[in-house]
This record gives sequence, C-alpha cells and structure tokens, in this order.
Amino acid sequence: MDGTIVIAGLGLIGGSLAKGLSERAGRRVLGIDRDPQVIKEAIACGAIEREAVPADLRDAEFLFLCLYPQADIDFVTEHAEEIGKQCIVTDVCGIKNFVCPALKKLAEEHGFTFVGGHPMAGKERSGFAASEAKLFDGASYILVPCGAPEEAVERLRALAMQIGFGGTVVTTPEHHDEMIAFTSQIPHVLACAYVMSPHCMEHRGFSAGSYRDVSRVARINEVLWSELFLDNRTALLGELDTLIENMSAIRTAVDQKDLPALRALLRQGRERKEALGE
Amino acid sequence: MDGTIVIAGLGLIGGSLAKGLSERAGRRVLGIDRDPQVIKEAIACGAIEREAVPADLRDAEFLFLCLYPQADIDFVTEHAEEIGKQCIVTDVCGIKNFVCPALKKLAEEHGFTFVGGHPMAGKERSGFAASEAKLFDGASYILVPCGAPEEAVERLRALAMQIGFGGTVVTTPEHHDEMIAFTSQIPHVLACAYVMSPHCMEHRGFSAGSYRDVSRVARINEVLWSELFLDNRTALLGELDTLIENMSAIRTAVDQKDLPALRALLRQGRERKEALGE
Repeated sequence: MDGTIVIAGLGLIGGSLAKGLSERAGRRVLGIDRDPQVIKEAIACGAIEREAVPADLRDAEFLFLCLYPQADIDFVTEHAEEIGKQCIVTDVCGIKNFVCPALKKLAEEHGFTFVGGHPMAGKERSGFAASEAKLFDGASYILVPCGAPEEAVERLRALAMQIGFGGTVVTTPEHHDEMIAFTSQIPHVLACAYVMSPHCMEHRGFSAGSYRDVSRVARINEVLWSELFLDNRTALLGELDTLIENMSAIRTAVDQKDLPALRALLRQGRERKEALGE
Repeated sequence: MDGTIVIAGLGLIGGSLAKGLSERAGRRVLGIDRDPQVIKEAIACGAIEREAVPADLRDAEFLFLCLYPQADIDFVTEHAEEIGKQCIVTDVCGIKNFVCPALKKLAEEHGFTFVGGHPMAGKERSGFAASEAKLFDGASYILVPCGAPEEAVERLRALAMQIGFGGTVVTTPEHHDEMIAFTSQIPHVLACAYVMSPHCMEHRGFSAGSYRDVSRVARINEVLWSELFLDNRTALLGELDTLIENMSAIRTAVDQKDLPALRALLRQGRERKEALGE
C-alpha cells in the first residue's frame, strides 16, 4: 500500500475530490475518465499525477467511484480482480440502497473493503471544469459503512476532514435514502416544476432572493438525476406525496379564504425553522 | 414642499427605507410607528429625525406607506385631509390589486398623487431591528403608477436609484400580482409546506445548499403573509395549480419508472434556466 488514491470519474465531484486530495491532503492521485481531454486538464492543473491503469488498483489505498450509480457497479465488477485487498473502495452516489449492497457483495467476494459515502455538496454546473477543492468546505460527508471495519471508516473520515469537510455522519443505506429524498431530491423536483410556469420567462424585475433560491438547481443534469430519482423511487414518491399534501392544505385554506387555518399552517413553517435554530 | 419624507411603519422595509433615505439620499426622514421603542431606536441610529405628526403630511414631498395592506388604506383614509396636494403617496405592499385602486381613489378625491411601489427585497427576519440600508442594493423596484403623472413616477424612480436599487420596472396592478404570485408567494408557500415533512427535524448532516435554499423563507411572518395570500387569491391559486400539476407530472414519470419522460421533464427545467442565462 502506497497511499495512492485512484479516482474513477473526474466530473464535478470526482474532480473536486482529486483537487482536494492532491492540494490539501498531499496525496498522490491517479484518475480515470472516459474523456481524454479531462485527463489532460486534470494533469495540467495538478489534480492528478497521471491517468490510472488497472494495475494501479493493486496498491492503491483508496478507490473513489465517482461515476453514475450503475456505472460504479459496472466498473467494480469489471475490475474486481485487480483491486488490492488493502484497498478501501468508496462511492459518492446520491443514493445508497441501489449501490451499497451490490458493492458490499463484490467487496466480500474479492477481499477488499467497501465503505459507502456521500459528500453533501454540489452546484448547478457539472463536469471537471466546474470542480474545485473548496466545493466541500464545511459540508457534511455521509458515511455508510455497511458493516465495514471501523478502522476503514475512520481512515475515510480522517481524509474527509483533511480536505475541508465540516463533519461526518454515519448511517444505513435505507435511512440515507429517506433523508436524501427530502433534503436533496425534492428541491430538485421542485426547481424543475417551478420554472415550468409560463410566468418564469418574464420574471426579471419582478423577482428577488426567493425566486433565485427555489429555481437555482433547475439547471439540472437530467441524465444523472433521472437515474437517481428512479433508483430511490419509493422514498422520493413518499416525500413528494407529503409535500403535495402540505401544499394542498395551504391551497385549500387560500381557496376557502380561511384566515385562521392559513395562519396556523404558515406558523407551523416558522415554528419548525425556529425549533431548528435556523 | 420641503423635501421631507414621512414613513408610516418602521418594520423591515420601512426601517430600511428610512435608513437608506437618510444615510444615502441625505433626506430629512420622519417616522410613524405604533411601537414607541422603535421610534426611539430609529432616532438613536439616525434613521429618522423625529416622530412625524399629522401636520408633517402637509409639507412632505413623499409619504411612504410601509404598513400591512389594509392598514395602509386605513391610514390614508384617516389622514387624507392632512396630506398636502404636492405630496407623492406611495406604498410598498407585496400585492397591488388590493391596495392601488383604493389609494388611487383617495388620491383623486383629495388632490395628492399616488404611485404604487414594491421594492423587491426582503429577508427571513422582520421588524426594525432587521432593517438595513443595504437591503435594497441591486434589487428591483416595481413601480405601479396607476395613471399618476410621469413626473411623479420619475421622482420616485430617482429616489430609488439614489438609495441603491439596481433598477425599476413599470407595470399594472394586475400584471404585478400575477408575477408576484409566481416569483414570491409560491416560494413562501413551498418553504412552509416543505419543512412540514417529518424528516425535516433530522436534516442536519444530510443536507446542503438545496435544503437551505428551499426552506429559507419558511421563517415567515404568518400574519402578514396570510393577508398577502388572501388578497392575491386568484393569481396565487393559479400558480399553485400550475406548480402542483408540474410536480405531479414528474411524480407520475417516477411512479411509472418512465425514464424518457422523466428526462424530458427535467430537461425542460435545465433548458429554461439556460434560456434565461441563469
């Protein structure tokens, strides 16, 4: 084991991790990307030392899977024999039930370690060009050990803190996916549904912070997010139904001109934010 | 006419206007507020020179109404005889169909000028303590002249630019209210409905920017916003129905595992933001 980190997929997250791990943690980072131009750029800016070859997986300390969910599983399936037994394989997928059991099974079959992960950061641009080491500053890194040894989880946690994350939480794939349906997937559904209003194109001059905030993530990578939504279908449908129900309650109060009911509903929102100290 | 500005209601918006008009436009500002403590604080920090008395309305150049919608109308009704004929009366209400016709009528009956207005700025705190001159920096000031002379509209516009607004748009009460239902009222409904999810209280560690942005304005002033919602009922119901319909289309695609339909819906969101250059 030589402390080398291999990153498969140098998009927004993989690229930002590469930059953080080389610049801030002083690690030797090797990269894999289907786009040769991205490899060139990543070498040029010092994010990676060079393109990784399968043999590099034998001695690497970490393999970060930063592809789409199914592609992560396919990558490990294809290279399982080449991954060294000392290697900690981790992914950065926004869903965990779909990827963790498959990757855990591959890890058990081939003798390496798998620890699921989800760095809670992103932005409304994708690709290596948008990546930056500071993307994770102060963010939460969700760790999904799936039975991995505590020592491996600790090493991943230490690495996360070295590159600027604000903290880590440990959970199961199931709880992760329920929470993510609420904290991340719903805002993305909302943003897209919101900007579809016929009034959206003429918002300039009539809008301020609340338009900007709700619509921000509508600039979505629809290929990635369609996959994330379908792979977390049950939890997402549950949150969507809850939200539509809560919106409909407010709609009914407005429709019926029921001032006390409307006030009570809005007060719940304020009180919840206050209870959270936000 | 002595260039004095009277502001009725020193809350977040009235207080911020008072600070901007005195600090940045060098105007003599007099204030009215039901809370004597607020008057004291506003004098102490230089936002106003002193409390206004009805006689001040005779010579004032502007009267800014910064109360709740119905209270604005009540205030002008009560003081209509005292308002000088040179005075430009303007309001800052987030809805215009409800207040503009009533205030325009009072202006015509009593000989002063009325120009509706809506400074497009706010934040998730209310009251004078939260007010600040920079609240309006770069924001849009919507002007709703309702037939007022161009010269009066220009004077209000010039004042807005002096205190830091980024620009002005001129429109009718009807169009204003349609746009505001979309740009401002829907995000407030959404924020409150969103945080009512049972998962909200445990979001820490599982959330990032998109949770923060959608939930931000849930810390709502429910008394003010209930009034704003009911006074703009038709436009708000229209936007709510559009939004629920668009969310339901995404929900159906997820439920039916219809990947092409889901991608096409999300792509619409991305393309709209791109078309807007956002």
